[in-house]
Amino acid sequence: MALIVQKYGGTSVGTPERIKAVADRVKRFVDRGDQVVVVVSAMSGETNRLVALSQAVSSNPHPREMDVLLSTGEQVTIALLTLALQEQSLDARSYLGSQVKILTDEAHGKARIKAIDGESILTDLNAGKVAVVAGFQGIDGDGNITTLGRGGSDTTAVAVAAALNADECQIYTDVDGVYTTDPRVVDCARRLEQVTFEEMLEMASLGSKVLQIRAVEFAGKYQVPLRVLSSFEEGPGTLISIDDNKDMEAPLVSGIAFNRDEARVVVRGVPDTPGVAYKILGPVSDANVEVDVIVQNVAADGTTDLTFTVHRNELDKAQAITEDIAKQLNAREVAVDGSICKVSLVGVGMRSHAGIASQMFKTLADVGINIELITTSEIKISVVIEEKYMELAVRALHTAFGLDDTGAVESSDNG
Amino acid sequence: MALIVQKYGGTSVGTPERIKAVADRVKRFVDRGDQVVVVVSAMSGETNRLVALSQAVSSNPHPREMDVLLSTGEQVTIALLTLALQEQSLDARSYLGSQVKILTDEAHGKARIKAIDGESILTDLNAGKVAVVAGFQGIDGDGNITTLGRGGSDTTAVAVAAALNADECQIYTDVDGVYTTDPRVVDCARRLEQVTFEEMLEMASLGSKVLQIRAVEFAGKYQVPLRVLSSFEEGPGTLISIDDNKDMEAPLVSGIAFNRDEARVVVRGVPDTPGVAYKILGPVSDANVEVDVIVQNVAADGTTDLTFTVHRNELDKAQAITEDIAKQLNAREVAVDGSICKVSLVGVGMRSHAGIASQMFKTLADVGINIELITTSEIKISVVIEEKYMELAVRALHTAFGLDDTGAVESSDNG
Repeated sequence: MALIVQKYGGTSVGTPERIKAVADRVKRFVDRGDQVVVVVSAMSGETNRLVALSQAVSSNPHPREMDVLLSTGEQVTIALLTLALQEQSLDARSYLGSQVKILTDEAHGKARIKAIDGESILTDLNAGKVAVVAGFQGIDGDGNITTLGRGGSDTTAVAVAAALNADECQIYTDVDGVYTTDPRVVDCARRLEQVTFEEMLEMASLGSKVLQIRAVEFAGKYQVPLRVLSSFEEGPGTLISIDDNKDMEAPLVSGIAFNRDEARVVVRGVPDTPGVAYKILGPVSDANVEVDVIVQNVAADGTTDLTFTVHRNELDKAQAITEDIAKQLNAREVAVDGSICKVSLVGVGMRSHAGIASQMFKTLADVGINIELITTSEIKISVVIEEKYMELAVRALHTAFGLDDTGAVESSDNG
Repeated sequence: MALIVQKYGGTSVGTPERIKAVADRVKRFVDRGDQVVVVVSAMSGETNRLVALSQAVSSNPHPREMDVLLSTGEQVTIALLTLALQEQSLDARSYLGSQVKILTDEAHGKARIKAIDGESILTDLNAGKVAVVAGFQGIDGDGNITTLGRGGSDTTAVAVAAALNADECQIYTDVDGVYTTDPRVVDCARRLEQVTFEEMLEMASLGSKVLQIRAVEFAGKYQVPLRVLSSFEEGPGTLISIDDNKDMEAPLVSGIAFNRDEARVVVRGVPDTPGVAYKILGPVSDANVEVDVIVQNVAADGTTDLTFTVHRNELDKAQAITEDIAKQLNAREVAVDGSICKVSLVGVGMRSHAGIASQMFKTLADVGINIELITTSEIKISVVIEEKYMELAVRALHTAFGLDDTGAVESSDNG
């Protein structure tokens, strides 16, 4: 018997039939003796429908009212799933964020969870009930409805699992686990049996959109074992857990992440005085432009070059700000490039193994790809290259680091 | 300056365009200095959509979860209307039933309001805000969402108006007021300038579906002036208020109500002993069959006949129960008729005027209609007749009691 928190996303509860399938799965866990809390998102398409309605009446919707509006999506799902569970003769009860209660700060549309009261849910579980909790929503200190932002249901699930000290938090989605890279880019991408929180964080922030990054942070912080599985087929999925559980024989590189939507800004010939990086990046950040990679090389001739990347949608804004600053700093020029991408190797194994970076650079050189920028962290090496080489780079690295699916690992799914 | 509670039903907020039209109207009241609270229903079609979803996952939906589900309808509307008001540069704020708060009993699906806390709304109004309140919903003592039943938004509006001691409660709907009878049956039906709470109660219970009967009871009890108006066109509507305001020159009969969906059960030759009516009607009522008209005539030959009417959908159930009882009581026979209707004259003027009943019976006799049952109250005379004569009866009575529209009264709309 275990206490399990399961989270089902929009496509997993997208129709009455899919909601009934979720009820079937929950029943199998209850029948084997588990205590189950289910966290659900809005039915797929519902959030977009509600956003469209708001745009039809308002050119600049107020965040408080948007939260009142959008939180109805999950409210509909908890009611329907609870009804479907009751139809299976299970005792079940729905919980709004305010009923749990999930206390957040007042940042409408992007609220952060401050505290969760697990008492009512634990009482229900101990009475043999299934608790069905609305994801994505909470309540602030004044009783206003708040939302955690898109994808926030993952965060709700992990936070509830932490509050209840659950044995596992299972995230059901439309993929059957975390892959070594995007299977749409590399045919022979392989599902990972296990990955660490740190690796998952690096993968998520780099574009593997399986899990919301805040949820992984939360799970890591509270050491909640997290499992990503498919709600459409059976299988063990991928377990995300702390480093200690990691198989010693694990490969050095766990996966290859990439991000296509980047753009690069270079400020050339900046007089090399203390605080240059802050003088340039401070105003960019103040304008709410998120900066990803930052590279500054050692100065030569009393000047230096500072390069950073931003999301492609923000390039014009970042360029305008940077050109202003560049003038004030007497920099030589600002050059931008809107067609770059970032490719990263991720793996906790890198910590203790030298030579991975050079193997990466050689692999790319062998297929004729020029590297524009390099950054490294303990468990990640990222390179920025021309966008058109992205698929080529990912495939070459996937093979070079032994990640290609040989059929051997998949056998555990069939056994 | 007045404090006005306005209620808009489903068709009045059925599309983003209609919601914007409601915001326009609210702005006109605010601009002339009124304080406005707006109570809204779900967008038309939304409740049916949600019910269909519940039926797709459950054969016997649990009332608690149905309330969680259905209450999202009004939640969507308050958010959208508040956004539309803000788009008009009005300061506005939405309120869920739980945020007002509207405390109800625990009867999910048909809860009754126990108390309303008007403090927050009054604070908002005094700060120049428009308060937008979700109709139909409340919260019980344990924090569960409850609903007042279909049409309950009218009750919410009146209850909020009573709690705030509002100057007027305006019910906006798709008709422009209360009519002397159904205009679909009588072309020359006339809009009433004013009607009393008692008359409105008799009209509503008899099938004039303009207002929910509980809302009228509530308004009468707390003496909240109630006005029914169209949300689609300008006009004074119909004011429903206490008797005292009634014009002394008012006609004797205010309107003609009718109910097509009735069926009749007669128990003939029941030995006339004390408690006969209870012995027959007790079990019918215990089976949750609502009985409308009850007629028992004086006994002859030691036996009596008891007749009652029920909703046509309940006839089979009522007949089965009654036949059981009839056997036990040694009654002669049970006869039923599923094709009857009820037509009623309603008017507070009847109280002090004799001769109205006989004029009614003569009018029906003149057009060849046989009366099967007659019941009377202080302000109402009802007859049960064959259904096929219903339109004929209503038209003849409408003319006989001077209710036909001559064009004279309508002129107040154009002036």
